[in-house]
Amino acid sequence: MIVNFKAYSEGIKKGEEIARAAREINENGEVFVAIAPDFIQLKSLVEFAPVFAQHTDAVNPGSNTGRITPEMVKASGATGSLINHSERPLILSDIEFLISAFRELELTSVVCTNNIPVSKAVAALTPDFIAIEPPELIGTGIPVSKADPGIVEGAVKAVQKVDGNIMVLCGAGISEYEDFVAALDLGAKGVLLASGVVKAKNPGMKLKELVGI
Amino acid sequence: MIVNFKAYSEGIKKGEEIARAAREINENGEVFVAIAPDFIQLKSLVEFAPVFAQHTDAVNPGSNTGRITPEMVKASGATGSLINHSERPLILSDIEFLISAFRELELTSVVCTNNIPVSKAVAALTPDFIAIEPPELIGTGIPVSKADPGIVEGAVKAVQKVDGNIMVLCGAGISEYEDFVAALDLGAKGVLLASGVVKAKNPGMKLKELVGI
Amino acid sequence: MIVNFKAYSEGIKKGEEIARAAREINENGEVFVAIAPDFIQLKSLVEFAPVFAQHTDAVNPGSNTGRITPEMVKASGATGSLINHSERPLILSDIEFLISAFRELELTSVVCTNNIPVSKAVAALTPDFIAIEPPELIGTGIPVSKADPGIVEGAVKAVQKVDGNIMVLCGAGISEYEDFVAALDLGAKGVLLASGVVKAKNPGMKLKELVGI
Amino acid sequence: MIVNFKAYSEGIKKGEEIARAAREINENGEVFVAIAPDFIQLKSLVEFAPVFAQHTDAVNPGSNTGRITPEMVKASGATGSLINHSERPLILSDIEFLISAFRELELTSVVCTNNIPVSKAVAALTPDFIAIEPPELIGTGIPVSKADPGIVEGAVKAVQKVDGNIMVLCGAGISEYEDFVAALDLGAKGVLLASGVVKAKNPGMKLKELVGI
Repeated sequence: MIVNFKAYSEGIKKGEEIARAAREINENGEVFVAIAPDFIQLKSLVEFAPVFAQHTDAVNPGSNTGRITPEMVKASGATGSLINHSERPLILSDIEFLISAFRELELTSVVCTNNIPVSKAVAALTPDFIAIEPPELIGTGIPVSKADPGIVEGAVKAVQKVDGNIMVLCGAGISEYEDFVAALDLGAKGVLLASGVVKAKNPGMKLKELVGI
Repeated sequence: MIVNFKAYSEGIKKGEEIARAAREINENGEVFVAIAPDFIQLKSLVEFAPVFAQHTDAVNPGSNTGRITPEMVKASGATGSLINHSERPLILSDIEFLISAFRELELTSVVCTNNIPVSKAVAALTPDFIAIEPPELIGTGIPVSKADPGIVEGAVKAVQKVDGNIMVLCGAGISEYEDFVAALDLGAKGVLLASGVVKAKNPGMKLKELVGI
Repeated sequence: MIVNFKAYSEGIKKGEEIARAAREINENGEVFVAIAPDFIQLKSLVEFAPVFAQHTDAVNPGSNTGRITPEMVKASGATGSLINHSERPLILSDIEFLISAFRELELTSVVCTNNIPVSKAVAALTPDFIAIEPPELIGTGIPVSKADPGIVEGAVKAVQKVDGNIMVLCGAGISEYEDFVAALDLGAKGVLLASGVVKAKNPGMKLKELVGI
Repeated sequence: MIVNFKAYSEGIKKGEEIARAAREINENGEVFVAIAPDFIQLKSLVEFAPVFAQHTDAVNPGSNTGRITPEMVKASGATGSLINHSERPLILSDIEFLISAFRELELTSVVCTNNIPVSKAVAALTPDFIAIEPPELIGTGIPVSKADPGIVEGAVKAVQKVDGNIMVLCGAGISEYEDFVAALDLGAKGVLLASGVVKAKNPGMKLKELVGI
């Protein structure tokens, strides 16, 4: 499970609370939770839980201003990065550049996709994870596992056919324990979520509730 | 063969000359030549030769300003469009949107790629053509068939493995008859070229020379 | 008055009808109407009425694919172009590049802005026209002259203070004769409109109605 | 003076060294040095010297992934941000949004420009600083104060005429003490530099040398 803080104010204020809850869950050992805070908190939260950047730019070290390079993500101590989130989409050659750069730097690539054909295309680039999120469900509270179970099952099947090592996550609208379980039942290896946890009154407690501990 | 006029001044001034040469070659019947003029000339050149837009935007008809929709391309009488040229790259979900929209409108999709993995990813989306062009060779006059024959052969093999119906073109640096023949020998079904013809003194004559008639 | 066809299907099908109505109005002599069709129709509609591109790219002639250069706009016979429409925004240095390129090519620049400070900034670049359109009103049918008359008056004053030669248009939500008159009363020299005409049942008739002839 | 670390590997490895040198210079009191590290180091370097983000996105807190909001920059303890660097240009309405958001959050805005007209346009938006950098000189080692002194003097004059409170910095190619002094002689209040310090063997020493202490 990856908790995306997005640019929510709550993600800045309660970042450490969420990170500590993730640590507790990870110590329990049944579910594995990573967090994707804003760039500024990356370094300070790595001590609590596995951390992913929300985005990485496809640029090499050098004369580039205002960019996040794979090298910077590595130096921060992060585990990897979301790539191509629907709120931060990338051109195709940059996705390929990043997956390949991450492989070399031993960073974990989690590439977001919006439908089954796009998931198939990304699978051909062999990232570590593919996270399918129908953009129209993001932030709605209507879980993809209920609204469109076929898209999750279909993506899992299509991706497995290309490369059995790629793990599929699903996202969009997930905010309850039963949604989480439903996602796993559909063949997903985990979920990507955001507002359901980050905007909860007690995000730490909510996160634990969500994974059933 | 597709002749991309790019934004060369010569493409505006000698557009009709190139289009007429294409018609002559097409009447001859051995080689098939299409042209990709700027948007403004699309409609007036369709009477001479098969015409491709250089780019199409992944937007539906509606409240969008300054965009070229698949519907507009269709209405112009064009045959199809280049998609994702390295000088006009697109986010992945837009490439998928366009290939699928083109299929419905019976337009021909020619998706440009920069290397073998990206070609494989695009193949999963089943466009009509994939045109591989290493960006670093564009406009150099060094033909990809000489500089990097492996990339052409590799792309042809990788694409065929995903879908045998997709035809592979290659581009970048092609300006002589022998480069054209070499490309075909490497398994490409044709070539994508630009400055080699468009910036020639007599682009019409040059085009005929290039295809060997 | 400028009628922006946007990417409406009706703009493709009824482009000539709107262009002919514009000609009739222009022959009448009281109101001056220009049209902004999609790129593909630019050339064929110049014979009826003054034509503006909906967008121009800030690129020089050369190795650029899928772009509309100032040179292409000039070659099409168009009068000028919208620049920086909120549906096709540009980086600041590109706006400056285009205004300056248009001056040299004797093309008319119509730069769109979203509020008073941005209008002031653009005025410093001395385009021919500034068209202020609060993006939140676009396509609503609520005319800016009613919803926010202060923004029109304020923009006119601010722009005049920088350069008295720049003419201010206003847009967003205009679809009736009274909105048009109200805009002029607020100091605007004209209006920019789209759906109010283009999506009308009889766009030609609607256009004539709108200008009161 | 602002030292932009860009995406140089050296900026990651020697960030603290540069920050400490900046602190020493600031304690000396004659020259005031701020640093612009990558996003990830922002928070950890604020204890040494005034820190600027290299870029901020024009987005409000909320459902946005992979973005740096003004609120995040404020929360990091940074002093402000570069805005519209030529390597990270912004659309005009975003520049206005950021200057205004920064004013409310009491963050310092440093807007980069590429020539005199663009500087004038930005001045109308009343940022705290305008940093003029001809992009063609960036990273060349040829100081703008030598290559094009007129652009610095011209920008200072044009900006002062719009608003006397805006301070003008100049950048591009500055790497020696004499370039720094020459910039001040031309009316600039300071300089923006990058490779000249960051890629030096001993960046801390180089920085002190550059300001003459």
